[in-house]
Amino acid sequence: MISIICGTNRGQSVSKQLAIYYQNSLQEAGANSYIIDLKELPKDFLNVALYDNAGKSERFNILKKKINDSHKMVFIVPEYNGSFPGVLKTFIDALDYPDSLKNKKCALLSLSSGTQGGALALSHLTDILHHCGMSVLANKPKLAKIESNFKDGQFTNDLYVTLLKEQIDGFLDF
Amino acid sequence: MISIICGTNRGQSVSKQLAIYYQNSLQEAGANSYIIDLKELPKDFLNVALYDNAGKSERFNILKKKINDSHKMVFIVPEYNGSFPGVLKTFIDALDYPDSLKNKKCALLSLSSGTQGGALALSHLTDILHHCGMSVLANKPKLAKIESNFKDGQFTNDLYVTLLKEQIDGFLDF
Amino acid sequence: MISIICGTNRGQSVSKQLAIYYQNSLQEAGANSYIIDLKELPKDFLNVALYDNAGKSERFNILKKKINDSHKMVFIVPEYNGSFPGVLKTFIDALDYPDSLKNKKCALLSLSSGTQGGALALSHLTDILHHCGMSVLANKPKLAKIESNFKDGQFTNDLYVTLLKEQIDGFLDF
Amino acid sequence: MISIICGTNRGQSVSKQLAIYYQNSLQEAGANSYIIDLKELPKDFLNVALYDNAGKSERFNILKKKINDSHKMVFIVPEYNGSFPGVLKTFIDALDYPDSLKNKKCALLSLSSGTQGGALALSHLTDILHHCGMSVLANKPKLAKIESNFKDGQFTNDLYVTLLKEQIDGFLDF
Repeated sequence: MISIICGTNRGQSVSKQLAIYYQNSLQEAGANSYIIDLKELPKDFLNVALYDNAGKSERFNILKKKINDSHKMVFIVPEYNGSFPGVLKTFIDALDYPDSLKNKKCALLSLSSGTQGGALALSHLTDILHHCGMSVLANKPKLAKIESNFKDGQFTNDLYVTLLKEQIDGFLDF
Repeated sequence: MISIICGTNRGQSVSKQLAIYYQNSLQEAGANSYIIDLKELPKDFLNVALYDNAGKSERFNILKKKINDSHKMVFIVPEYNGSFPGVLKTFIDALDYPDSLKNKKCALLSLSSGTQGGALALSHLTDILHHCGMSVLANKPKLAKIESNFKDGQFTNDLYVTLLKEQIDGFLDF
Repeated sequence: MISIICGTNRGQSVSKQLAIYYQNSLQEAGANSYIIDLKELPKDFLNVALYDNAGKSERFNILKKKINDSHKMVFIVPEYNGSFPGVLKTFIDALDYPDSLKNKKCALLSLSSGTQGGALALSHLTDILHHCGMSVLANKPKLAKIESNFKDGQFTNDLYVTLLKEQIDGFLDF
Repeated sequence: MISIICGTNRGQSVSKQLAIYYQNSLQEAGANSYIIDLKELPKDFLNVALYDNAGKSERFNILKKKINDSHKMVFIVPEYNGSFPGVLKTFIDALDYPDSLKNKKCALLSLSSGTQGGALALSHLTDILHHCGMSVLANKPKLAKIESNFKDGQFTNDLYVTLLKEQIDGFLDF
C-alpha cells in the first residue's frame, strides 16, 4: 500500500488538494493509496508523542501505524521559509527510528507560491530520508507558482500534468 | 541583546545545558543574553500559532517578542534524524516573516550523540536563515559525541572549549 | 578592492556578460572592482596548480593573487547539472587554504537557462565558502530563464534589475 | 558492469587505494567492476572536453564510454573544502546529459582526514546525481579520520569494514 503524506497541517491547503489529485492519478494507474494529512495530528502533538512520550499518543499512533504499514510513500511538500514545513520534520522525528522508514521507497513533490518551486525543501528532505534509510526517487517535480497553475483540483498547466505522470510512472517501477 | 535559542523542546536536554554554558561564556565576554527554550512553547503550539492563527497565542507571542527584540541570535542545534529538530523549524515558521529575522545576525552551534556532529543540520538551517534574510556566522562548530565530551555543564574536551571561544569572539565582532 | 568571479570557463558565457554588468553597477555605486574570468585558467590547470603542484603555475598564481588581494568577492554562478560548474570548485580547491578566503566577505548570484534559477548551486557554494571561513551575504538572487531576461548586456526584466540593485546595496554595507 | 569512480585526480590518493579495496570486496561478493581514476583525465581536460568541445577529446571519450557502458557506479569521494573535489563535478559536467547517468544506480562513499567524514560532500553530490536522474543508495558511509583507520590498503577499524560490507550488500540488491 502507498501512503501519500500531505506535508503541512495548514487548513484548506493546496497540498491537500494535490494529495487528492495524486491519489486519483495513482488509482488510474492501478495503484491503491491512502492520504495521511498532517492536519490530523493531535493538537498537543509536540508534547505527547515525542522523546519520553514516544508511543503514548493514541491519536498519533494511528497515523504512525499507517506509515509503518506502507512500503512506498509520496511526500507532498509545500515550501515554507526556504525549506519544508517544520511540522513535517516533527512528524518524522516522532516516527519509529529506523523501522518506520528504513528500506522503504518514496517519491517527493514540492510546490511553492513563489518562483523557486521548493528545490531546497526537497534537498533537505532527501538528506533526512536517506539518513533514515529510505530510497528516494530521483525524479522530484518542483511546482512553482502553484496558485496560477492548479485550480479547483486540476492543473491548468500541461507541463505539470506531464511531470506528475512521469513521476508516477517512475515511482510504480521503483 | 543576544538571544540564545535552545533548538529542541525535549526535557532535560543537553542543548539546554549548552545554552546555559553559552550564556555564561557570553557574560564573561561582557555580553548580556537571554535563553529562549523551545520547551516553553505552548502545548497546542501547532494549532494556535501558525497560518490563520498567527499572532493569536499569547504564550507564543511572549517568545516571539523576545526574538523580535533581539538583533543577534545563537542557535543551539541538536542533530535529529540527519537534520535539526522539526520543532525548531516550526518555531521559525511561526515567527513574523520577514521582520523577526531579516537583517539580523546569528551564530549556529550543533551537537550530536553520534560521530557526525550535525553538519547537515547546520547546512539546512543556514539555507533557511539566509532565505529569511539573516546573516550567518561562517564559523559553525559541530560538536560530535557530545555525551562523552560535555558533563555536568562543562566540557571535558579542550578542543570544544576552544571552538566555542573562537566562535564567541567572532560573533561579538560580527 | 572587490573581485567579481565569473564562475565558468565556457567561452561567450552569459555569466561573463553579467560580470560586466555587475562591474558597471558597482562603478555607478562608487565601488571599484576587477573581473576574474575562469576562462583565463591555464589549459593544464588540473595538472599544474593543485596538490603537490600548488603554487607552481605562474599563470594561475596571477589569478590567485587577485583573489588574495581582494577582501570582498562576487561570485557569478551559472547552474550546471543541478549545482555550480566543477571548474569553479576546482578553482577554489587550488587557492591557499585558508588565507585566500578566510575572514573575507562575498555575495552570490546565480543564473540558469531553466526555471529553477540555481538555488541548489548557491546552497552548495555557501556550504563551501562558510567552510573556508568566508561571510556570505544572505541576499542571493537566483535569475531563472536568463536568456529570456537578459539580452545584449541589459536586463529586459525590471524585477532582475531591482534584485541586483538590492544585492549591491546590501553588499556595499556588508 | 559496475564502475568505481575514484573522485580525485590527486596522485597517490587514499581514494584510489579505497577504490581498489572496494573492487576487491565486490569481487569477493561475485561482482565484476572496473576503476575509473580521474587521474587519467587528459591534462588539458578543461579546454578540450567541455561545452563547444564536448566529445572532441579522444582520451576523455575513452573514460566517458566506460561510464556510458556501466549501469551501476560507486563514487569514492574525498572531502575537499567542505564538499567533494571540483574535478569530480567537472568530470560530470563533461558527460553526456542525460544519457551517461539517467536511470542508472549508484552508491556513494566519502572519506576525510578530519572528523567530519564528508557528509556535506555526499549531500551535494546526491543533489547533482538526482538532478541527472540517477538513483542513489540511501546508505552512504562517511569515513572520518581516514589516515588513522586505513593503512596499506586495509582498514584498521572494524566498524569501517562493517559499514562497507553493509553498503556493498545493499548496493548489489539495489
